[in-house]
Amino acid sequence: MSETQVSPTAVPIRAVDVIRKKRDGDELSSSEINYLVQACTRGEIPDYQVSAWLMAVILRGLTKRETSALTDAMLHSGEVLDLSEFLAKKVDKHSTGGVGDKTSLVLAPLVAAGGLLVPMISGRGLGHTGGTLDKLEAIPGFNVNLPVSDFRRVLDACGCAMIGQTPEIAPADRKLYALRDVTATVESPYLICASIMSKKLAEGIDALVLDVKTGSGAFMKEEKDAAFLAELMVETGERMGKSVVALITDMDQPLGLTAGNSLEVIEVLEVLRGGGPSDLLALCLELAGWMFYLGKAVETVEQGKTFSAELIQSGKALERFRQMAALQGADVAAIDHPERLPRAKHTLDVLSTASGYITAINCEAVGTACVVLGGGREKKEDSIDPAVGVVLHRKVGDSVHSGEPLCTLHYNSDAQGNRAREMLLRSYRIEHALVAQRRPMLHRVIRSSGGK
Amino acid sequence: MSETQVSPTAVPIRAVDVIRKKRDGDELSSSEINYLVQACTRGEIPDYQVSAWLMAVILRGLTKRETSALTDAMLHSGEVLDLSEFLAKKVDKHSTGGVGDKTSLVLAPLVAAGGLLVPMISGRGLGHTGGTLDKLEAIPGFNVNLPVSDFRRVLDACGCAMIGQTPEIAPADRKLYALRDVTATVESPYLICASIMSKKLAEGIDALVLDVKTGSGAFMKEEKDAAFLAELMVETGERMGKSVVALITDMDQPLGLTAGNSLEVIEVLEVLRGGGPSDLLALCLELAGWMFYLGKAVETVEQGKTFSAELIQSGKALERFRQMAALQGADVAAIDHPERLPRAKHTLDVLSTASGYITAINCEAVGTACVVLGGGREKKEDSIDPAVGVVLHRKVGDSVHSGEPLCTLHYNSDAQGNRAREMLLRSYRIEHALVAQRRPMLHRVIRSSGGK
Repeated sequence: MSETQVSPTAVPIRAVDVIRKKRDGDELSSSEINYLVQACTRGEIPDYQVSAWLMAVILRGLTKRETSALTDAMLHSGEVLDLSEFLAKKVDKHSTGGVGDKTSLVLAPLVAAGGLLVPMISGRGLGHTGGTLDKLEAIPGFNVNLPVSDFRRVLDACGCAMIGQTPEIAPADRKLYALRDVTATVESPYLICASIMSKKLAEGIDALVLDVKTGSGAFMKEEKDAAFLAELMVETGERMGKSVVALITDMDQPLGLTAGNSLEVIEVLEVLRGGGPSDLLALCLELAGWMFYLGKAVETVEQGKTFSAELIQSGKALERFRQMAALQGADVAAIDHPERLPRAKHTLDVLSTASGYITAINCEAVGTACVVLGGGREKKEDSIDPAVGVVLHRKVGDSVHSGEPLCTLHYNSDAQGNRAREMLLRSYRIEHALVAQRRPMLHRVIRSSGGK
Repeated sequence: MSETQVSPTAVPIRAVDVIRKKRDGDELSSSEINYLVQACTRGEIPDYQVSAWLMAVILRGLTKRETSALTDAMLHSGEVLDLSEFLAKKVDKHSTGGVGDKTSLVLAPLVAAGGLLVPMISGRGLGHTGGTLDKLEAIPGFNVNLPVSDFRRVLDACGCAMIGQTPEIAPADRKLYALRDVTATVESPYLICASIMSKKLAEGIDALVLDVKTGSGAFMKEEKDAAFLAELMVETGERMGKSVVALITDMDQPLGLTAGNSLEVIEVLEVLRGGGPSDLLALCLELAGWMFYLGKAVETVEQGKTFSAELIQSGKALERFRQMAALQGADVAAIDHPERLPRAKHTLDVLSTASGYITAINCEAVGTACVVLGGGREKKEDSIDPAVGVVLHRKVGDSVHSGEPLCTLHYNSDAQGNRAREMLLRSYRIEHALVAQRRPMLHRVIRSSGGK
C-alpha cells in the first residue's frame, strides 16, 4: 500500500518499520537507530517493540556502521562528561569480566601516579564474575556512589577516582539492559559492544584499553568470539575519535590466587607493595603499559611497562591508592593493616584426593563457588558478604599430592561452605602427566585496522 | 551457574529460557510452547517476552512438531465447538486472501444445499485484501456478530452459517496477532499456519479445504512460499486428525470482475443464478468439489464438481443463500433485487491510453485502489464504505483499443476517485503482442504426505 501513502520524505520513522528492516537483515540508518534508542529511553515506544528489535539484532547482527550508530545513540541518551578542564590525557581500562580479576584497583592509582587522569566508572559483579565496586566496598567506608561533582573533585585531587554508574550516564543502556536480561537478548557482541563503549565514552576519555577475557571463566569462552567482540569495540571507539586497543587475555583459571572481595583487596595491596602473584602483576603491567602508551606518556608499550614497575617499586602507586581511598571516605587503617579488612568466621582447606598435575581448573565453577558462599550475586538485587571467598594454593601446571590443599575456603555458613567445597573439588582436573602447555596470559593484541 | 540450582525435574518453565532456546534454534517441547501460549493469553508473562519469542520464531522457524504444538495450544486457549449433535459431515474452506475473492459466499450455501454442514467463521478485510464479513455486511441487515447459540440455530435450520470471530474462540490468536501486527512478526508461515488452523479447527469441523493464493495480489507472491505454507497447514491439520487439502490458486489478477463489497455481492448472486465470470465459477466448483469429496458426499472430486454445478443450476444454492441471509437478519429484498444493494453516487470509466494486449494487472494495486476509494481498511479500526469499488472490463489476455474502458470506478468522493483512477491506469500493462500464456486458475493440489 506504500504508493497510496504520503511521500517518503514526509514519513516519520515508525518503530515497526525499523524492526521489520532489521528482521529482514537490512542496514538501519543512524537516524533510525537514534530514533529507536531515544524513544525507548523516554518510554515513547512500548517495551514489546524494543524487545522484538533486540531479538532481530541478536539473530541478524549489526554492521560496523550500525554498531557505531547504536553506541553513539546510547552515549548521547545521557550526559557525556567534559573533562577538558584537566590538562592530562584521560585514559581508562575496561575488562569484560572474570574470576579474581582485580586489576582495576591496581591500575587506576598506578596510572594516575604516572601523571595521567583515570576517571573510572565501573560495575558490580553478576553471576560468576566479580565487580570492581564490590571489591572497593570491602574497604570500610569506601564510597563508590559519588555524584559527578565529587567525582571531579577526587579526580582533581589525586588523578583517579572510582565510582559506579550515575543515573545521568547512558540511561539507554540501563533501560535496554533490563529488557535484554529478561528476553534472552544479552549475548550479542553488537549489543555488548554498544553497552560497554557507550558507558566508557561517556567518561570523556581520550584513550581506552580493553581487557577482553577468553577461557572457561570468561563470558566469551572461545577466543574467536572474544576477538570478534574486541575488534568491534576497537573499531567503534576509533570511529568515535578515541585511541583504543584490546588485549585478549586468559581467563581459563582465576587471575591471581584469590576470589572474593576482601581477599582480593588484600591481594591488590600485595601487588601495590611490590609482591603479589606473578600472573596478576604481569597483567597489570601489560595493561598499564598500554594505558601509558595510548595516553602518550611514553614512546613504547615496553617503556610503559617499565615505568609502571617503577611506580610500584617506589611506593607511589600504593600512596595514590591510599589517597584516593581516603578522598572517597575509606578508613585508610584497613589499607595500612589489611588484616583489619572484613574476615570470614571460618576457613577450611580443600584437600586433593589425588596426586598428579593440575591440568585444568573450571574457572566459572570457582566463581560460582564464591556466589554460593555469599560473595557474589545470582540476581542484581542480592546483597553480598565481602569477607567470604577462596584462596588458591595450586594453579594449572602445578603438582599436588593427595591430601595437600588445593585451596582454602573463607566462609561464614557451614551449609554454604560444604556446597562450595564440593564445587571446588570438582573444578580441579588432576592427571598423571602434564598434558598441555600452560596458556599464555596475553593471547593477542587487537588494534584498529584503520578502516572507517 | 546451572549446577548450583535445583535439579532439572523440579525447575518450572521460565519464559526467558523458552525464548533463549528458540533463539538458539533448538526445538521446543509441547509443554514449553503450551506454557508460553497460555501464560501469554492469561497475561501472566509480559508482552516484551512474547514479542522477543515471536521474533525468534520468525528468524529461526518452527519444526512441524512445534507448529502442531503451537496450533494445538492456540486452539485450546479457548472454546472448541462441539457440533457432534449434527449428523452431517462438517466442512469448511479458508482462503489466504486476495482481491475480488468472494468464493466463501457461494460455497457455504452451495455445499450446505448438498447436504453437508458448513460452520464458517470468517475475518474482515485488511490492506489490499477483502474480507468475507465486510462483503456480507453490504447486504442490509445481515448480522455476522451472532453468539455461538444463534450460530448453532442457523446451522440447524439451513446447514450453513457465516459469522465473525467470537471472543471464546482462540483468544491466544487475538492476543498474539495484536502483538505481531506492531512488532513486524506477521510474515512467518509457521505463525500464519497456527493462526489460521487454530481458528478453523475450533469450528469443530471434520474436513477443511484451503485456498492458498499466489501471485501479485496474494500475501505469498511466490508459488514456492504459497506451497510451503500450504504443506505446513495440510500437515498440521492431518496431525490433528482432520481431512485437509490445499489448492494453490492464482491471484495474479483479481478474481472475477468486481472488487468492492456491494459489487462483489452482486457478482456472487450472478454466480448463484447460473451466470457470473468463468474464472470465479470455475474456482467455486473446484473448491466445492473438494469440500464434497473430503466430506464424503461423493466418490471423486469430479463428481463433487458436477454435483456443485447441478446445485447451482437447480437454484438450490441460491435458495440456501437466501435462507441463511434471512436467518441472519438480512433484508432478502436486496438479494432478490440486487439493484437495492448499496450503490455509489458516481461511476467513472477508466479508459485505456494504449492499444494492444493486457499482459498483466498489478492485483495488489487494484486492491489498494479499493482501499483508497474507502472500500477497505488501512488500519483495523477504519470503517468502510460498502458501495464503492471497481468493475473490470478487461483482464489479462484480453485486447483493448486506446479509448476503450479498462474498468469502471464506483466512488463517492471525487478526490478518492481521482487517486484510484491514477492507480488503476498504472496497474494495467498493455503490450503489442500477447507475450505470456495466461496463468491457470489452479496451480497445484497439496495433500498430506501421510507423515506423522
